[in-house]
Amino acid sequence: MARPKKIPGTTVSRLSVYVRALQKLRNEGVVTTSSEKLAAQIGSTAAQIRKDLAYFGQFGVPGRGYYVENLYNELATILGINRRWEVAIAGVGYLGYALLAYNGFKKQGFDVVIAFDRDPAKIGQTWEGVKIYDIAEAPSVLPENGAEIGIIAVPAAGAQEACDAFVAGGLKSILSFAPGRVITPSDVTVKRVDLAMELEWLSYYATNAGEHA
Amino acid sequence: MARPKKIPGTTVSRLSVYVRALQKLRNEGVVTTSSEKLAAQIGSTAAQIRKDLAYFGQFGVPGRGYYVENLYNELATILGINRRWEVAIAGVGYLGYALLAYNGFKKQGFDVVIAFDRDPAKIGQTWEGVKIYDIAEAPSVLPENGAEIGIIAVPAAGAQEACDAFVAGGLKSILSFAPGRVITPSDVTVKRVDLAMELEWLSYYATNAGEHA
Repeated sequence: MARPKKIPGTTVSRLSVYVRALQKLRNEGVVTTSSEKLAAQIGSTAAQIRKDLAYFGQFGVPGRGYYVENLYNELATILGINRRWEVAIAGVGYLGYALLAYNGFKKQGFDVVIAFDRDPAKIGQTWEGVKIYDIAEAPSVLPENGAEIGIIAVPAAGAQEACDAFVAGGLKSILSFAPGRVITPSDVTVKRVDLAMELEWLSYYATNAGEHA
Repeated sequence: MARPKKIPGTTVSRLSVYVRALQKLRNEGVVTTSSEKLAAQIGSTAAQIRKDLAYFGQFGVPGRGYYVENLYNELATILGINRRWEVAIAGVGYLGYALLAYNGFKKQGFDVVIAFDRDPAKIGQTWEGVKIYDIAEAPSVLPENGAEIGIIAVPAAGAQEACDAFVAGGLKSILSFAPGRVITPSDVTVKRVDLAMELEWLSYYATNAGEHA
């Protein structure tokens, strides 16, 4: 299916939410749903769901709504999660180790297969079945390894170095937990996770609670 | 300032991005900016920034754009980050410990002041200056502690129990790293962080890369 050129990043994020909701319905044996029911399930609106899906085609059946299994498969294909992805992690401190051991990744098809660090005490070890290499080796070991997505879980001071090593190793998709931007060539996609921003979202609603009743 | 009732959650998330960009400009000594310059700085559009800000009032000065310091202060006040927030963490496994030690929280005014776990080996210990209590004690110790935001960093199986203990302890704002929804009274705000969704965002762009040139 041809895709339109400009899909908002927020729409892509919401596709993941829809996929999760459809997975749940499928596990419960539900055969059909509607944009109204999906909206109620995830706390969105039917109009938002219809608008997001319209970027990718026509999925509903008039008078029936959506077939859960079909819509799940379509969205999983669009998101690229109908396959396995191999993932590299830079930095196996507490956060990196938590990510390495995180069950939620494997469950959605993301397998951490290789890790990197700068600490000589960690380099050469194997944790959770994942071998740890010197970050300086990333450009040479990544191309023969198969990882396509890199996760940066190093402190801010090491983030650009880790990112450069990933890019030199051929990775085009990078998830960064480090504060601040990393600079990459334009064909590399970087998604930043700023955990303080998640708390700010809560502080907004806590601050303005009375006005959002 | 009176706030309109319905601010989209995505707008609130973007305010955090604007605040970060303004902090950076302020640190660089930049006095004024514009929606066009801000958009270029963060990879958004001027129209999006103007639309988001319009929910909260009129901030620009005709012919001058925005005063960096003023806009930063206004947005920080709106987000509720012009103050310190005390934070509780449930679960001090690798993820919980990483969050407990995360510098990015304190830097933005979020101080982890108390932690909970179910592991008798951890209960009673103090890590990074933060005392660890039995999660069952949350309803009694939280009200006298001062924490207003709770972070759930326990495995899925313990998430609802941890959430219930936080709610019983009076917390109204909860950030959950556990897979799946937790059920709360309607006056409690829950923000879920699903780290696999961040990877799905990347897999979307990796899958559709040729079509998004």
